[in-house]
Amino acid sequence: MKVTLISHTPEPEKVIATAAKLCYSSSDIGSLYDGLTEDKVQGFIEMLVSIGHESVMEHVSFTFGIEGVSRACTHQLVRHRIASYSQKSQRYVNENGFEFITPPEIAAVPEAKTIFDEEMQRLAECYERLADVLCESHKQRLIAEGLDEKTAASKARKQANEDARFILPNACETKIVVTMNVRSLFNFFKHRCCNRAQWEIRAVADEMLRLCCQAAPIVFKNAGPSCVMTGRCPEGKMSCGRMKEVQEKYKELKNG
Amino acid sequence: MKVTLISHTPEPEKVIATAAKLCYSSSDIGSLYDGLTEDKVQGFIEMLVSIGHESVMEHVSFTFGIEGVSRACTHQLVRHRIASYSQKSQRYVNENGFEFITPPEIAAVPEAKTIFDEEMQRLAECYERLADVLCESHKQRLIAEGLDEKTAASKARKQANEDARFILPNACETKIVVTMNVRSLFNFFKHRCCNRAQWEIRAVADEMLRLCCQAAPIVFKNAGPSCVMTGRCPEGKMSCGRMKEVQEKYKELKNG
Amino acid sequence: MKVTLISHTPEPEKVIATAAKLCYSSSDIGSLYDGLTEDKVQGFIEMLVSIGHESVMEHVSFTFGIEGVSRACTHQLVRHRIASYSQKSQRYVNENGFEFITPPEIAAVPEAKTIFDEEMQRLAECYERLADVLCESHKQRLIAEGLDEKTAASKARKQANEDARFILPNACETKIVVTMNVRSLFNFFKHRCCNRAQWEIRAVADEMLRLCCQAAPIVFKNAGPSCVMTGRCPEGKMSCGRMKEVQEKYKELKNG
Amino acid sequence: MKVTLISHTPEPEKVIATAAKLCYSSSDIGSLYDGLTEDKVQGFIEMLVSIGHESVMEHVSFTFGIEGVSRACTHQLVRHRIASYSQKSQRYVNENGFEFITPPEIAAVPEAKTIFDEEMQRLAECYERLADVLCESHKQRLIAEGLDEKTAASKARKQANEDARFILPNACETKIVVTMNVRSLFNFFKHRCCNRAQWEIRAVADEMLRLCCQAAPIVFKNAGPSCVMTGRCPEGKMSCGRMKEVQEKYKELKNG
Repeated sequence: MKVTLISHTPEPEKVIATAAKLCYSSSDIGSLYDGLTEDKVQGFIEMLVSIGHESVMEHVSFTFGIEGVSRACTHQLVRHRIASYSQKSQRYVNENGFEFITPPEIAAVPEAKTIFDEEMQRLAECYERLADVLCESHKQRLIAEGLDEKTAASKARKQANEDARFILPNACETKIVVTMNVRSLFNFFKHRCCNRAQWEIRAVADEMLRLCCQAAPIVFKNAGPSCVMTGRCPEGKMSCGRMKEVQEKYKELKNG
Repeated sequence: MKVTLISHTPEPEKVIATAAKLCYSSSDIGSLYDGLTEDKVQGFIEMLVSIGHESVMEHVSFTFGIEGVSRACTHQLVRHRIASYSQKSQRYVNENGFEFITPPEIAAVPEAKTIFDEEMQRLAECYERLADVLCESHKQRLIAEGLDEKTAASKARKQANEDARFILPNACETKIVVTMNVRSLFNFFKHRCCNRAQWEIRAVADEMLRLCCQAAPIVFKNAGPSCVMTGRCPEGKMSCGRMKEVQEKYKELKNG
Repeated sequence: MKVTLISHTPEPEKVIATAAKLCYSSSDIGSLYDGLTEDKVQGFIEMLVSIGHESVMEHVSFTFGIEGVSRACTHQLVRHRIASYSQKSQRYVNENGFEFITPPEIAAVPEAKTIFDEEMQRLAECYERLADVLCESHKQRLIAEGLDEKTAASKARKQANEDARFILPNACETKIVVTMNVRSLFNFFKHRCCNRAQWEIRAVADEMLRLCCQAAPIVFKNAGPSCVMTGRCPEGKMSCGRMKEVQEKYKELKNG
Repeated sequence: MKVTLISHTPEPEKVIATAAKLCYSSSDIGSLYDGLTEDKVQGFIEMLVSIGHESVMEHVSFTFGIEGVSRACTHQLVRHRIASYSQKSQRYVNENGFEFITPPEIAAVPEAKTIFDEEMQRLAECYERLADVLCESHKQRLIAEGLDEKTAASKARKQANEDARFILPNACETKIVVTMNVRSLFNFFKHRCCNRAQWEIRAVADEMLRLCCQAAPIVFKNAGPSCVMTGRCPEGKMSCGRMKEVQEKYKELKNG
């Protein structure tokens, strides 16, 4: 898994502080912006975060590149609707020799690992064989319809990929570019950094949070799962029961 | 594939017409609503549709049950963000003996069909085997941690499903409940009824449109791919080149 | 102020329960729906509400007609973005003799009431006079441009309204049709039923909640301001300090 | 009216191009990003814009400060829901001696201008008088409830502002910080740069577009009203009938 911070709104703290100041001031925007020294910004953002004035956080966005994750993971990720996504397409990109993600719990059990690895290899062979058979069949049809061989071959390959991908597994590696604003990130971290989230999306969320904290430490000071944000766990009897440990983990993640 | 219209806003035409009338009238809402005879509603909705006054269409929502479709299909579906989704979870539901979707292009080529069917069967066996191995390993660990056998077995099964699903293929059958408002449906049909959309999501979209037309024929009178909505194809040189045929198809779908 | 429930998704509890069941079941949607007796639905919805499984609540929408409220109130209302709005237009509707909303705190202070009422009357006269002057000026210009008198008069009236509305006050009465799904309503009630919200939007929110509780009592059982939903106030030192009283108020509102 | 570009995603063209490349490539994100020379980016973005691949445009956001506009204008603006807003509050900021916006059509007719200006002055006096009367009344009550004079005076002032603003007119000047992503901006320009939009929001939209074109000229090359984006007017018989003139205007606006 590799998460990269591709881009983000410059001077995130200052943008947020300017927007927030505006709500309660009759000064013009230029003066508000220029009057915000680094010190003032810090204190002001801390106050906004502490009272939960989240709407002003929307003015700042972060764009991440995420690779080396499974399609299972991105299927969870894209369910967050206040966000923008661009994902490697299995319809347009040939997946011969595809990479795959092995869940740690499978890697830890030798017998499971063997079943898994053998199946992944077989799937790769099958995918290639299936795509070739479909491709040849499409090509013949397209030639019969009057296309020249080269055009037919290229069109056929695309159509073949589109259907062959039906045998590709959830483990299949994918890449995705994700943009979320800070408010949406807060919500994402709340749910996906929680110990009850699945291991893979939690690892992605942790890495995103680490990068956010480097870029805008004051804004993300309290970000994390519910128990980090609010000091309490809302999961009731479903709680992981390890709040202290989780809080400690995110303290380290943010410092390190 | 099976699409059911589970529910929709009652009297969709009347609700839309009331909301639209309100924008241009100083009458009270009750009078507007009561004054809308069936005839008046029809003419008014036709006018709104023709001038593209889409925001009033948002007051009416449709909820569909969709089953017998592949995860490949729902991964496309859930990318429409102005909508609500509830989907069968592969984390919580065991997929022993899972159903799967065979793309027609694969079904049509005997050699491809054989590869596909054999692989699906092998995947089902593998999934079951992998889940069992993981389950046994988790169970032993949980018992060693002090859980009684019954609790350990139940917890282990869940954890095993969660990781075993990594080998499940895109072809795997899924079910989903989807709610969209009419404006979002218009956009969905525009993109997904188009001949350039993939066969499976196009089939879902067609069926949704057919059900919408039965429930609110005037509202959806012009709905469909761009060439049906506007009489022109925006795809340029990517166009399917069969506009007349497509327009004919949707005329029939709506009448029948 | 008058709030009417124009429409809502029929059988709201059953639709939500079906969607929720689907996530954890391999049964087909028809069986799930048919198997949900009234008793089962009630218990199930109560459980969903208690664990905060909010995404399934989105499948049900409510459409309200709101009238007799000020533009100040709707300017706050329309800031809720997960919702649909159709509002009486001050550009298209002439506001001669406009109605207005008097804040209770003004009504309670005779001197303030006098200032307010006199100003409202003067504004009404001014609006009419201003619109007439503008209308006449536009009409002359349009006739000079070659339009016949009748067409010119009608066009001129519209243009005149558009600019004359600049002197209309926040107190000016407006009407709006609003559609929100249950999840968005929960959020709306959380913020706008709070004692710290403004009196007018709080009155609207209270009335919407009352109507929701009549239509779907189990779904909205816990709905209300934060202190009603969760039993605690998140406002810190900004708290109204009257939690018990507020909780009592919403108990009565729901029962009555 | 003053519109400032407060901030935007850095290297907007490169971010969009990277996201778009990813969909059709199996290269890793770092290589894609690094491989995008300025020349390649330009050609690629032009292609994306021409085929209408809008989803990748969402990865880039622009944040504007808008001041010197009327509340009438921002009431239209905030109806665009795929955006973030922070606005000067009339509840929290005292509006003594408020600035106001005069519509050009009123400024052009001396008799109208006189009515308007006199009314604005009277409204300012009334607002101040009303706020003072309310403030005094609140203060007495709060002192009677046991507050010291200073605290009572400060609390009373806030409560007084909140209600006195009911007489403030639509013309009242406001300030707002707005963030939209490029896709949402395209839609905003399509509707609000159109000749049929109201003069004030059209002026805001024009200025936003001018600033966008300076920051990311290739991305916004085709942006503007429908007739600029697509070469055709969708308004039918409501069309302004001056397409050539409008197209010329935006050519000039973009050049400088």
